[in-house]
Amino acid sequence: MFDPITALKEYVRFPSVSTDSKYAEGMDGARSYICGLLKTLGFSLEVVETERHPIVYAERFGRPEWPHIVLYGHYDVQPADPFILWTSPAFAAEERNGRLYGRGAADNKGPTIVHMAALQSLLSKRPDLPLNITYVIEGEEEIGSPSMPAFFDRYGDRLAKADFMLVSDTGSPNTDQIVITTALRGLVDLEVRLTGPKVDLHSGIHGGAVYNPLQALSELCASLHLPDGSVNVPGFYDDVVPAEDWEREELKRYPETEASYRDLLDVPAFAPARGLNPLEAVRFGPTLELNGIGGGYQGEGSKTVIPREAFAKITCRLVANQDPIAIQDKVIATLEERCPQGVRLNVRRGGTAEAYLVVPPNRPNTPRDQPASLARAFAAADQAIESSFGRAPIYLREGGSIPVIADFKKRSGLDALMIGLFTPEDNLHAPDESFDLGLLSRAVTAFEQILSGIAAKD
Amino acid sequence: MFDPITALKEYVRFPSVSTDSKYAEGMDGARSYICGLLKTLGFSLEVVETERHPIVYAERFGRPEWPHIVLYGHYDVQPADPFILWTSPAFAAEERNGRLYGRGAADNKGPTIVHMAALQSLLSKRPDLPLNITYVIEGEEEIGSPSMPAFFDRYGDRLAKADFMLVSDTGSPNTDQIVITTALRGLVDLEVRLTGPKVDLHSGIHGGAVYNPLQALSELCASLHLPDGSVNVPGFYDDVVPAEDWEREELKRYPETEASYRDLLDVPAFAPARGLNPLEAVRFGPTLELNGIGGGYQGEGSKTVIPREAFAKITCRLVANQDPIAIQDKVIATLEERCPQGVRLNVRRGGTAEAYLVVPPNRPNTPRDQPASLARAFAAADQAIESSFGRAPIYLREGGSIPVIADFKKRSGLDALMIGLFTPEDNLHAPDESFDLGLLSRAVTAFEQILSGIAAKD
Repeated sequence: MFDPITALKEYVRFPSVSTDSKYAEGMDGARSYICGLLKTLGFSLEVVETERHPIVYAERFGRPEWPHIVLYGHYDVQPADPFILWTSPAFAAEERNGRLYGRGAADNKGPTIVHMAALQSLLSKRPDLPLNITYVIEGEEEIGSPSMPAFFDRYGDRLAKADFMLVSDTGSPNTDQIVITTALRGLVDLEVRLTGPKVDLHSGIHGGAVYNPLQALSELCASLHLPDGSVNVPGFYDDVVPAEDWEREELKRYPETEASYRDLLDVPAFAPARGLNPLEAVRFGPTLELNGIGGGYQGEGSKTVIPREAFAKITCRLVANQDPIAIQDKVIATLEERCPQGVRLNVRRGGTAEAYLVVPPNRPNTPRDQPASLARAFAAADQAIESSFGRAPIYLREGGSIPVIADFKKRSGLDALMIGLFTPEDNLHAPDESFDLGLLSRAVTAFEQILSGIAAKD
Repeated sequence: MFDPITALKEYVRFPSVSTDSKYAEGMDGARSYICGLLKTLGFSLEVVETERHPIVYAERFGRPEWPHIVLYGHYDVQPADPFILWTSPAFAAEERNGRLYGRGAADNKGPTIVHMAALQSLLSKRPDLPLNITYVIEGEEEIGSPSMPAFFDRYGDRLAKADFMLVSDTGSPNTDQIVITTALRGLVDLEVRLTGPKVDLHSGIHGGAVYNPLQALSELCASLHLPDGSVNVPGFYDDVVPAEDWEREELKRYPETEASYRDLLDVPAFAPARGLNPLEAVRFGPTLELNGIGGGYQGEGSKTVIPREAFAKITCRLVANQDPIAIQDKVIATLEERCPQGVRLNVRRGGTAEAYLVVPPNRPNTPRDQPASLARAFAAADQAIESSFGRAPIYLREGGSIPVIADFKKRSGLDALMIGLFTPEDNLHAPDESFDLGLLSRAVTAFEQILSGIAAKD
């Protein structure tokens, strides 16, 4: 038997940053660790090799007539820099005031441990639990899941025999109000590099003659939004399907106001795209964000230089019905068209992912072919959450992306029941990421009930 | 007796980066090294303490009626990063194909060694040379000479007894065509920092609601130029005095065409401000340049983050008659006025320096109070350069800045005869900076003649 908090600490201490090859050892450690837990739970294991980080595939299979769920998660984490802004070291897994601090504590290591601890508890009481379970825990979620298409080529048919997925890689507004996520945004990643002179130039000797790549980059990046906050890329909004009325109503139950949200982030003002308030904009609208810009001298003091190059890292979040490749093409075409003549433009195409949308049972426009087992699962979750957390869940679209969820649907026909275990205080992708240990404990209880509710009657 | 090439190598090997406190030891080493050379030449030395890097003040004083010149230089250098772009290590002083490579080899260590070697040679033949010489070699030129005002408070009157200055911290088009520089641009340094949310945010969970500081920075920076290449800061050009006709004519003698200049820099197109061609723009016009921009994720791969802050390092080059403080105020006021409401703006005021202009003897609008000794010096230089290099010098404004030259004029009434020893191949402020050793040798001969010509008749 493992203790969930101890297990989470051990798991967080492996620095499993998938984007940076320096962290190969941390990736190996995190993967081995969860394999060990799955073995303890009696799963049969396959470690599926990929070009970078292997996928953990594990099965608990009893009888074909039992319900069959897929539990999805990821063992990789975002980079932890800037390290200097962390109160305790990013991979120390320090416990303070009922929270566990560390990169990945919430995204996605905490929820993974919740699921496993719930399963452990349930199996200790019902060793013959009539539930087939397939675990898929990948190591490339934070870099856009590039190996999953090949994985689906090999495993898609086996996965298609399952009924649906259970996922906890989404957020809730606080530790009392759990959200069931009905949509995820898609993602488009790209990087622009502008090159001017062949070497860095002295800004006195050559300043005035050449187009400074930093100026060109600023102009290009500035052109990508309009003053009303919308993305200024022709055709960007063409295929966007707006949110349903019931979704806007459900959002009103969300325990966050514009004022409280502004206080949380400590921004002087919001800047949502036209037609959406800030709370809607992060859920119902697509975005284009600059994630990093660099060029020239960044050290102490000043350096009078015209740099030879400058870059910008850009990602877009897409909503259901937007085609990521088409959007990537449009952004690149726009950059090429607007690039000043004085510099040369290079674009690195990064990963893309489609958005995902599930309409819960008994809502307007629920697809007719939705499996009955999914409706049972939603009902079990509704009940377990209300009993563990004291409040019924809110059904809401989420702004984040889990690139593979749309692929599970497309390749294996699996819809997803997504139960959010992050809260805004968790600082996902930011310094001082943490996970609430009180929530962890209540979530273990809830997931034990959910898994029990999904299982077939003995 | 020291050998000039050996001396230059030794001098370059001290990494004297003034802007970065990590290089304190290199600063000390470089300063001690030139103090040693000056002692060898028989100078009496004072090391003038400042808040950061001491000034070397040295005198050779015979009789009051002898001509008295000031030789100015600097022992500090620009930062050498990005180190990865150097062919040999930045402070290794490696000799390849008749050039000495290293940060500071040209700016300003090579010319300093030229002056000292010429003096050494001349004194070996005429130990009683009737010439009073004051050396001022500072350690803060590359950071805007912040200690020089206090230095002038203490030494300005002593310096005022000199006739004029001799300086080699400017450029020439190639190793055969020397330029006598008639103007230097002024400098304004500042840094903008924009802050948005209190921590880096997950671009999925929060993307769409907040004003991304990188977007705000791009918009602010993009606003600082107009499509015609001019600086878009109200009042920026108010006090600019355009170049004289003779200066535009003299520039036509300059052995560089737009095409050859474009090949040299390898830019796809030029972007001079309205009304100037590229060769004029770097000499006759003021500029605003972005020297560095940074914010968000800059590592390998991607990171889906909205960063909490972003910065831009900005410098302006000013021409004669522009007031640097007034320009700094105007740029800051413009940034404040244009800063989006969604972010907070902070500006660090860096150093400023006035531009400098000397009209050579017998040109239109030469000031009537110009000292006769300066005319003699110009004539001696004219002759010595033609005899050593085979061509008469070109009289030209320079795009770079030597912040203290205007101060020497203002505080001690000294005009400057500036003889350019850098060439474009030297890669000043850039990777693979180097100094041509053939030019070094010819320049030593020329300066020996110039010093001899300035000296009183025995």
